[in-house]
Amino acid sequence: MTQNIAILGASGYTGAELVRLVASHPSMKIAALSGDRKAGMEMAEVFPHLRHLDLPTLSTIDEIDFAGIDLAFCALPHGVTHGFARSMPSHLKVVDLSADFRLRDPEVYRKWYGIEHTATDLQNEAVFGLPEFYRDQIASARITANTGCYVATSLLPLIPLLRAGVIAADGLVIDAKSGVSGAGRSLKEGNLFCEVNEGFTAYGIAHHRHMGEMDQELSLAAGRAVEVSFTPHLVPMDRGMMATIYAAGDAAAVHSQLADQFAAEPFVQVLPIGKAPSTQHVKGSNQCHIGVVADRGAGRVIIISVLDNLIKGASGQALQNANIMLGLDETDGLMLSPMFP
Amino acid sequence: MTQNIAILGASGYTGAELVRLVASHPSMKIAALSGDRKAGMEMAEVFPHLRHLDLPTLSTIDEIDFAGIDLAFCALPHGVTHGFARSMPSHLKVVDLSADFRLRDPEVYRKWYGIEHTATDLQNEAVFGLPEFYRDQIASARITANTGCYVATSLLPLIPLLRAGVIAADGLVIDAKSGVSGAGRSLKEGNLFCEVNEGFTAYGIAHHRHMGEMDQELSLAAGRAVEVSFTPHLVPMDRGMMATIYAAGDAAAVHSQLADQFAAEPFVQVLPIGKAPSTQHVKGSNQCHIGVVADRGAGRVIIISVLDNLIKGASGQALQNANIMLGLDETDGLMLSPMFP
Amino acid sequence: MTQNIAILGASGYTGAELVRLVASHPSMKIAALSGDRKAGMEMAEVFPHLRHLDLPTLSTIDEIDFAGIDLAFCALPHGVTHGFARSMPSHLKVVDLSADFRLRDPEVYRKWYGIEHTATDLQNEAVFGLPEFYRDQIASARITANTGCYVATSLLPLIPLLRAGVIAADGLVIDAKSGVSGAGRSLKEGNLFCEVNEGFTAYGIAHHRHMGEMDQELSLAAGRAVEVSFTPHLVPMDRGMMATIYAAGDAAAVHSQLADQFAAEPFVQVLPIGKAPSTQHVKGSNQCHIGVVADRGAGRVIIISVLDNLIKGASGQALQNANIMLGLDETDGLMLSPMFP
Amino acid sequence: MTQNIAILGASGYTGAELVRLVASHPSMKIAALSGDRKAGMEMAEVFPHLRHLDLPTLSTIDEIDFAGIDLAFCALPHGVTHGFARSMPSHLKVVDLSADFRLRDPEVYRKWYGIEHTATDLQNEAVFGLPEFYRDQIASARITANTGCYVATSLLPLIPLLRAGVIAADGLVIDAKSGVSGAGRSLKEGNLFCEVNEGFTAYGIAHHRHMGEMDQELSLAAGRAVEVSFTPHLVPMDRGMMATIYAAGDAAAVHSQLADQFAAEPFVQVLPIGKAPSTQHVKGSNQCHIGVVADRGAGRVIIISVLDNLIKGASGQALQNANIMLGLDETDGLMLSPMFP
Repeated sequence: MTQNIAILGASGYTGAELVRLVASHPSMKIAALSGDRKAGMEMAEVFPHLRHLDLPTLSTIDEIDFAGIDLAFCALPHGVTHGFARSMPSHLKVVDLSADFRLRDPEVYRKWYGIEHTATDLQNEAVFGLPEFYRDQIASARITANTGCYVATSLLPLIPLLRAGVIAADGLVIDAKSGVSGAGRSLKEGNLFCEVNEGFTAYGIAHHRHMGEMDQELSLAAGRAVEVSFTPHLVPMDRGMMATIYAAGDAAAVHSQLADQFAAEPFVQVLPIGKAPSTQHVKGSNQCHIGVVADRGAGRVIIISVLDNLIKGASGQALQNANIMLGLDETDGLMLSPMFP
Repeated sequence: MTQNIAILGASGYTGAELVRLVASHPSMKIAALSGDRKAGMEMAEVFPHLRHLDLPTLSTIDEIDFAGIDLAFCALPHGVTHGFARSMPSHLKVVDLSADFRLRDPEVYRKWYGIEHTATDLQNEAVFGLPEFYRDQIASARITANTGCYVATSLLPLIPLLRAGVIAADGLVIDAKSGVSGAGRSLKEGNLFCEVNEGFTAYGIAHHRHMGEMDQELSLAAGRAVEVSFTPHLVPMDRGMMATIYAAGDAAAVHSQLADQFAAEPFVQVLPIGKAPSTQHVKGSNQCHIGVVADRGAGRVIIISVLDNLIKGASGQALQNANIMLGLDETDGLMLSPMFP
Repeated sequence: MTQNIAILGASGYTGAELVRLVASHPSMKIAALSGDRKAGMEMAEVFPHLRHLDLPTLSTIDEIDFAGIDLAFCALPHGVTHGFARSMPSHLKVVDLSADFRLRDPEVYRKWYGIEHTATDLQNEAVFGLPEFYRDQIASARITANTGCYVATSLLPLIPLLRAGVIAADGLVIDAKSGVSGAGRSLKEGNLFCEVNEGFTAYGIAHHRHMGEMDQELSLAAGRAVEVSFTPHLVPMDRGMMATIYAAGDAAAVHSQLADQFAAEPFVQVLPIGKAPSTQHVKGSNQCHIGVVADRGAGRVIIISVLDNLIKGASGQALQNANIMLGLDETDGLMLSPMFP
Repeated sequence: MTQNIAILGASGYTGAELVRLVASHPSMKIAALSGDRKAGMEMAEVFPHLRHLDLPTLSTIDEIDFAGIDLAFCALPHGVTHGFARSMPSHLKVVDLSADFRLRDPEVYRKWYGIEHTATDLQNEAVFGLPEFYRDQIASARITANTGCYVATSLLPLIPLLRAGVIAADGLVIDAKSGVSGAGRSLKEGNLFCEVNEGFTAYGIAHHRHMGEMDQELSLAAGRAVEVSFTPHLVPMDRGMMATIYAAGDAAAVHSQLADQFAAEPFVQVLPIGKAPSTQHVKGSNQCHIGVVADRGAGRVIIISVLDNLIKGASGQALQNANIMLGLDETDGLMLSPMFP
């Protein structure tokens, strides 16, 4: 049975990536595309790389008849979906790529996003969209809150380790790095080619918005409040994300725990102990590679996690969630190998 | 019925790209991989981005039992396949990505490659592997000679225009540009990151080896000897190739001819007249985008053709040829959308 | 004697590059900086790489007292300087980096820039700022019109060849390529990192504004109307510009003419015949490298010219002009070696 | 008085950068250049960007007559200089860019470099070449051991903080990132453009050779044994280096200490508290920018230090040392502003 899909916010990078993935999905059909500022335009004008596909014209959200839609991906700015969500028909499943339904506590949402949440009831209904840990809840969810890209990169190794108590919850340092596509397609001086190229920059130090989600999930995993040191950096490349994590723990135990945890997962590869992963080896795929290396000091371990921020960190994760919500095979449309070089 | 595939030369970039494509092909199975200098290694060591696939260990060519192989892709250096070809079992179909079977005249082969051809009988049997023009011959070929990447980029627009006499055969200028992956994975100082990055260089001016193929096919199309001006350049990016072609001809007639020629082709998109294509919009796909723009001077036209040198210019073209040779749907395993950004 | 310098438009890339160069000039002092939209800000905020310099705060142009200024560099948008020029005190020398004073015919200016010229008298006074050919006129000019970057790259080899009649004036093809800094610091979607990176694009085909200047100067050099084919392309790198020029002429004669012409020039290097230059070898300097290669066809030649678009193509050329206008040594502050890698 | 300079190892990137810097030094003259594998070649062939300079032909080291040389820069591989040093005439001053004279303990040298030191007496004579902390000793040294690039980046902020006790010596994490030129010009697969570009990789985790120097100097500063967590990463860019340092300490106290320490230093800029530096803003210069940001947790601070690995991290530092050793102004030839973009 074909699933009719709407992609809201299709004129941004995660929207375009959703179009690319869904267009080759064996049982999904793109029935509607919105892009408010570019409504009325053909996708071939907005994204010439999609020219060969037969796609709906971009519309406004209001113009979409959701009666015939089975599932909507919302790739909209933070603060938009939670207003829109109230008016959605009850049959509609939603994967929301914004932060609107990620945070269980409306106060925390207000703190990090500066917005009053207007759909706190729906927030309770929403499930945190990391399928490797919340697969069962996602299967029955109406709204799944796709995680932030830094969050997926960091939590994939950290949640099982904290749950098992294999690393200490205190003193965690996450030094994170992202390709520029993570900043989206908005017109900011800092996103211009010449500002970013041939340079490396830290930003949002100690106050990046993804910290709220990380605190929430790490604390749940550890069974107590956890607050990490987190510094994101911008890498002069299109795609790719790395978290270099410094922790107290035994490298062999950490590696063994992660290898067990992810042995059967199709999208997480744990490298042999001592091997460090590279972002270029997951680019273009829904794969996450994790490496574990013993630090010099006894009882110290360095854990490195990499993924493609637009796929496993955003649109691929979203499609993985959608597959689960619709009762499809979780890997449908997602078994693309990384593209190297 | 599953087709058993061997990929010879799997430790280079075109070899790896073949692995990536064939691994997700609906009716092909990778039965053997060779990489002489890296024989005995696992592909996950040689190309960590293929770690999630279940692949044969790299072997030498001699170790492969071709009895059970239906088709071999030869991604070997120029001059190797034509020696090896003699000993191939007669049931084996071959798509050769080297130049060994592209040139009909052994003298021309010797001139451009400095090697005496030792399988001139097989050369007669081989078909020039541009499926858009040689589809029928490829269907019954035992050996298909995949074209050079610059050649595919240039010939896709030029062959139909010369055949139809819509442009003049004299005075053609092809100013071509390639991403660095076209230079392969070999250890040359000129391929080091710091030598190439943040720079733009012309090379092989007036003596690039692809000229032999271009002369041959352009002359066939024009029905008379054609010799173009051809300058290749190196662009600081991984993938992508452009040919900017200056010709005498009427832009509207050129556009109309190309639009008609490629209307039904799955892998060639002719843009609206006046629009220029970009390599980033075909990256990661088997697509070729062609643009036509009127030059200032009356009767002068600029034609721009772009493709991904590793896919439509090499491994994707090879798979397209293999599909035809094996009687499969020509698009099997090749309908991947470009990846942007 | 110290020369007091004003730099108008110091918040753009050519403005910043002027600041960098002038700050280390042996006899110039930066007395005023304007940047209308960023007036009131310190340069260290606008361009953190200039933090170590002791610089004036950015002001509006109106706030500058030109009485104490000897020379102003105008790095303002096209169409601004010609209005402002009327009100300049008569002692003030001006090097204008916009197109406002490059075109001798106001009709041509209107055609390419869509603006009515309001200072046509001053236009007659202005000198075309290519010092290698107009050194004497620049020495006594009050206004020097710095050339466009594509124009400098193309004219440096072409003017002497056309003057000497060593190449044919008809059928010239200039295939040009530029780093992204040529597009300036303005907020356009097409200048975003992810739109440009890992891609190669042609733009402004057959209607780039620099064509007006090129026509003017090439026609003067040839003694008859010349109209070239000119296609600019965008290269995913910060700096660097190449013109690949296809012409009818004898390579040896072309090389000999250029070698003679530039033998004593400090900023133009003619490579040994057959050698192709690279943009990365002039980056960060006021140098232009020119290579000459015989094409395959008898009597056809390929000429390649490279420079740093922000220096020899803009701010370095401007400083070279200023040195001449102020009676200083033409190389003062400009003998920086290229930075490689 | 002109100082005659020899540059040994001039065919590598740090050698070329020394040539570039020394060539524009007001009182130095390049008297000899060695490059053993490229002996007999002109620098214009080895490094076309230096074509405009009048330079000696590359020779072997043996061919150089050191009698007329005042100072030699040794940009040779690790393990070469300490053998060669014994035979140097006693009047010759040496700035060694290798690790041969950085480590006071021959055992530590053997541990990190796997080589027996054969000039341990000279090692005692050598001074650790960080001028900001060892200026007086360098002034009278015959051999100065230029520091590793990661070491300079990390020690500039850390030495004053540990000396003053403003941060804790335990639990220091240094997450470091380098442009690719740090890997030199050697032919390794991992240095090829397509292996590095569009990717981000950690390497040498917990066993990078620069750790020996860091341990030595941090322990001296702290007055007790210090062992940091140190992970280097490779950034897809030519130049630039960052150390992101996580420490226990009060951000205001840290900032104040660093601001005081470097107030009079020409090559170290401490940014306003809370501001993060970028590598692109020091590229091409001898500047180091340091930023200090309070971490979320009370008493935790993040310190970020950036420099150009080829200049302040190598050849610029070497020239700064040479200026001191020769009694010249420390800033001679080094006041180049960063080049952005």
